Amino acid sequence: MTVRQLYPGTYSASIVIIGNEILGGRTQDTNTPWMAERLAGNGVVVGEVRIVPDDKERIVRAVKELSAEFEYVFTTGGIGPTHDDVTAESMAEAFGAPLEKNVEAYSMLEKHYGPEGMNPSRAKMSMMPHGAKLIPNPVTAAPGFIVENVYVMAGVPRIMQAMMDYLMDNIPPGSPILSNAVACTLRESIIADDLTALQKKYSGIQIGSYPHFRSGNMGLSLVLRGTDQRTLEQATDELIKIIRTHGDEPRAMSMRTHDTL
Amino acid sequence: MTVRQLYPGTYSASIVIIGNEILGGRTQDTNTPWMAERLAGNGVVVGEVRIVPDDKERIVRAVKELSAEFEYVFTTGGIGPTHDDVTAESMAEAFGAPLEKNVEAYSMLEKHYGPEGMNPSRAKMSMMPHGAKLIPNPVTAAPGFIVENVYVMAGVPRIMQAMMDYLMDNIPPGSPILSNAVACTLRESIIADDLTALQKKYSGIQIGSYPHFRSGNMGLSLVLRGTDQRTLEQATDELIKIIRTHGDEPRAMSMRTHDTL
Repeated sequence: MTVRQLYPGTYSASIVIIGNEILGGRTQDTNTPWMAERLAGNGVVVGEVRIVPDDKERIVRAVKELSAEFEYVFTTGGIGPTHDDVTAESMAEAFGAPLEKNVEAYSMLEKHYGPEGMNPSRAKMSMMPHGAKLIPNPVTAAPGFIVENVYVMAGVPRIMQAMMDYLMDNIPPGSPILSNAVACTLRESIIADDLTALQKKYSGIQIGSYPHFRSGNMGLSLVLRGTDQRTLEQATDELIKIIRTHGDEPRAMSMRTHDTL
Repeated sequence: MTVRQLYPGTYSASIVIIGNEILGGRTQDTNTPWMAERLAGNGVVVGEVRIVPDDKERIVRAVKELSAEFEYVFTTGGIGPTHDDVTAESMAEAFGAPLEKNVEAYSMLEKHYGPEGMNPSRAKMSMMPHGAKLIPNPVTAAPGFIVENVYVMAGVPRIMQAMMDYLMDNIPPGSPILSNAVACTLRESIIADDLTALQKKYSGIQIGSYPHFRSGNMGLSLVLRGTDQRTLEQATDELIKIIRTHGDEPRAMSMRTHDTL
């Protein structure tokens, strides 16, 4: 079942995080949760994330596979001026488009650095696949770009976020994903059967069960997601009853926020 | 180029993070950086991470592709007792092995919950692909398991970490990845050419360049990685000279820690 089928009226997306620093564990990927929440609020559901190294072959493969399967692909990382920035040439290869100097991008960079400030490394940031549309970068000038259904953004969170803000104003919105989250202290294995029955009853709602440790105690977060508010509330009310039946008092964690999957 | 070729004497690995809660953005994936650093210290280099939903089809596809390409695959999530825990049946399907009650796992669960405490949901956690070897869970009893080159662990960080500790004592270690990190305040586009030349000179070292914002200022982290300490120190010394040539004073961020890629 595709994510699209799970939530009618939404768009499907995948994310590709490009960068050795994330795979090495040195840098925590904070782009994925930020993007996933932002997208969900616009009715775009993230169905898969891949973290790949600064390696052309792996980037090309991930982008080709995911762009064929999802309506949108969002990438972050690898569009800077250094030797390890290979995202633009990877996109050119993935779509069989020549890599060329994008005149509009070059002009943005020249305006930012001054004509005397342009060097080969800065000019490199204007090299993009033929036909690319630009994503403005209000922070450091070097733009992202769009090829087919792939949205290529910077890896630095502050720049990526500004680019996403721009994109979310320019992409047709889907039905926002609504979610309710309820916490309790029951063990999963105590309410698993009831949850299965509840999931069967509400096929339009996705019910997730997530055990966790907090302050040394095991707890359980139950998350309900869907696009229809009334059904979501009904299912949440039933879940609350189930928890009380087992002698626990549920706590609402966050209500009616946008979430996804 | 494969990750194995990048670092002689190391093993290659991929990670599959299973769980809608991560894709939804509600939960930050902290398992990836923890595992990547732990693995790097044991000479295992992570070459790709995929975050997939609690969906059998997508889990099967990711595991089949990655287990064919990497020497190890480590998965977290989806081995609990609830309806959205579909990892065990996905592994059975991926490897064409029947899903069956693992007698040893059942006995661990029975010991933990008591014979009268066993219910169908708890028994579900003993269902594993035929031939699976167990990964002990010292926290909540329900074990992970190994099928072929795939290591299936819990998603709760504290449990995953205990399982990884066990695995790292039982997997032959490769050459640890050593890394040096140097910070400066230069712009990437100022030293990009020198970095390219440095990378060409030291083919056994991977040099990464990562711009960031801290306290509102743009900064640059430069990370060098490799398995040969002497070459790593030489390349680091040269990098420090390059930064000084451009009028900046480098700061050592962390020296001789294990890191990867």
